[in-house]
Amino acid sequence: MSKIPYINNLEEWRSDFKFSIPINIRFSETDMFGHVNNVSPFIYFEEGRIEFMKSVGLFGNLSNDQNDVIPIVADLQCDYHKQMYFNDEINLFIKVNEIGISSFDMHYMALDKHNEICLTGRGRIVSISPANGKPVPLSDEMKQKLLET
Amino acid sequence: MSKIPYINNLEEWRSDFKFSIPINIRFSETDMFGHVNNVSPFIYFEEGRIEFMKSVGLFGNLSNDQNDVIPIVADLQCDYHKQMYFNDEINLFIKVNEIGISSFDMHYMALDKHNEICLTGRGRIVSISPANGKPVPLSDEMKQKLLET
Amino acid sequence: MSKIPYINNLEEWRSDFKFSIPINIRFSETDMFGHVNNVSPFIYFEEGRIEFMKSVGLFGNLSNDQNDVIPIVADLQCDYHKQMYFNDEINLFIKVNEIGISSFDMHYMALDKHNEICLTGRGRIVSISPANGKPVPLSDEMKQKLLET
Amino acid sequence: MSKIPYINNLEEWRSDFKFSIPINIRFSETDMFGHVNNVSPFIYFEEGRIEFMKSVGLFGNLSNDQNDVIPIVADLQCDYHKQMYFNDEINLFIKVNEIGISSFDMHYMALDKHNEICLTGRGRIVSISPANGKPVPLSDEMKQKLLET
Repeated sequence: MSKIPYINNLEEWRSDFKFSIPINIRFSETDMFGHVNNVSPFIYFEEGRIEFMKSVGLFGNLSNDQNDVIPIVADLQCDYHKQMYFNDEINLFIKVNEIGISSFDMHYMALDKHNEICLTGRGRIVSISPANGKPVPLSDEMKQKLLET
Repeated sequence: MSKIPYINNLEEWRSDFKFSIPINIRFSETDMFGHVNNVSPFIYFEEGRIEFMKSVGLFGNLSNDQNDVIPIVADLQCDYHKQMYFNDEINLFIKVNEIGISSFDMHYMALDKHNEICLTGRGRIVSISPANGKPVPLSDEMKQKLLET
Repeated sequence: MSKIPYINNLEEWRSDFKFSIPINIRFSETDMFGHVNNVSPFIYFEEGRIEFMKSVGLFGNLSNDQNDVIPIVADLQCDYHKQMYFNDEINLFIKVNEIGISSFDMHYMALDKHNEICLTGRGRIVSISPANGKPVPLSDEMKQKLLET
Repeated sequence: MSKIPYINNLEEWRSDFKFSIPINIRFSETDMFGHVNNVSPFIYFEEGRIEFMKSVGLFGNLSNDQNDVIPIVADLQCDYHKQMYFNDEINLFIKVNEIGISSFDMHYMALDKHNEICLTGRGRIVSISPANGKPVPLSDEMKQKLLET
């Protein structure tokens, strides 16, 4: 595996994940090259991100008052380490890697049944006010929840 | 081509189409069998349906007052006649086949560059009141527009 | 529920399903109308069809010899009875409704957590020889497997 | 626009694009938040990447002999600068930003009809031998073609 900018120490980075979901690769998510299409991992990242947010009670609710803020995906990236195929048993791991004032980084890792890394990735989530589109600081309670998982 | 329930006379049915759009098959819409995935035609039907509705000035507006009614897809069906592949030049034809009191049938036909039929299909659109979810009769003006194309 | 051409007696038809899978609605499968996009049910039908075929040992194997025949989707149709939303708990039921010489009909029914019907559908699968593209009669063993489930 | 790691000088970076394709946003590519889903830009990047490769005569052909090498997407990333909506007129620009021994970086930029940046992105393509999965040096002819556009 070549050097990934968002991973300093691979063993440490990898062992830091706690939350995961099984990924159900759909036939329509493969392509004519016979494997999972390059777009599909971002579908899985979205699914994992939402399940993670639900698990910490923050889906559709980034502050005490649900209407105060909404989470926006600022960027996303994915490194393709190993081809995935239909019927592969894939687990997607998700963690919060870094928390800023009004945003945080989520990291992603997909492992196959041999525990080999198929995908790694990351993306920044920004807490935004729907009223004016400006970033809103994360509450302490929220930061706590994100860090606990 | 075996008998299709919604086509009485194929030549007549086929010659009745006037409106069409080119279909741009995306790589992610193929699957590991090497051809266009069975789900993808319904993406194309949706694109064609919307372009048709725009062309007659009825997209997002099934009556004189835009908020009176919304169009709902009641059912959809597709017959697969010939495999489609990435890079194929496909044209999708759309027509209104039958107009009822508060609904109408749209028919679909996809031709390849040899003018051979790859797909045929149909689906019913119902005009609904968002307030109570009940069907709303189509206005005469609306019926006129649908028939003209 | 209005009359569906492929359902004679709804109660009977419904009670005849045995096999089902839970459907995991993905966020990317919703659309700007706020509900599950009209294309998405065909993704679920494909997933259900494949899981059903696996469960009877016929996925990628429609005869004794795996390379003799391949299954082809000849047509698909879906009736939309009730809107589905992200986070809805949906179960998709699949059954073989009718077996012909070289093809069979699969029927689909999606229920929400109140056991209300959201979708019904059907589609024909034809057993084809990859060598010449012609239909191949289903073996007795194969028919047996399809009927048992 | 906040600092993007792969863009040094925005004006320079932007003016360096020559090749573009119009993007046809599909209704099924929106989501329940009302805008284009976060996954969809990667569909557009793939479409743009392939059209670019075709335009330089390198699609399905990274060397003189078509079977020698295949292009593999090593990584992909996207920064979301401005929401996109159904019916928006979007142009996607693609360029080769940097050529290495056996790989090159493609950069992406999506502009709306006001010429405002909606998306920026990049991703590495590696030239691989299908026989052993190892990187294969790009030929001089190939490098020439990639640089000319």
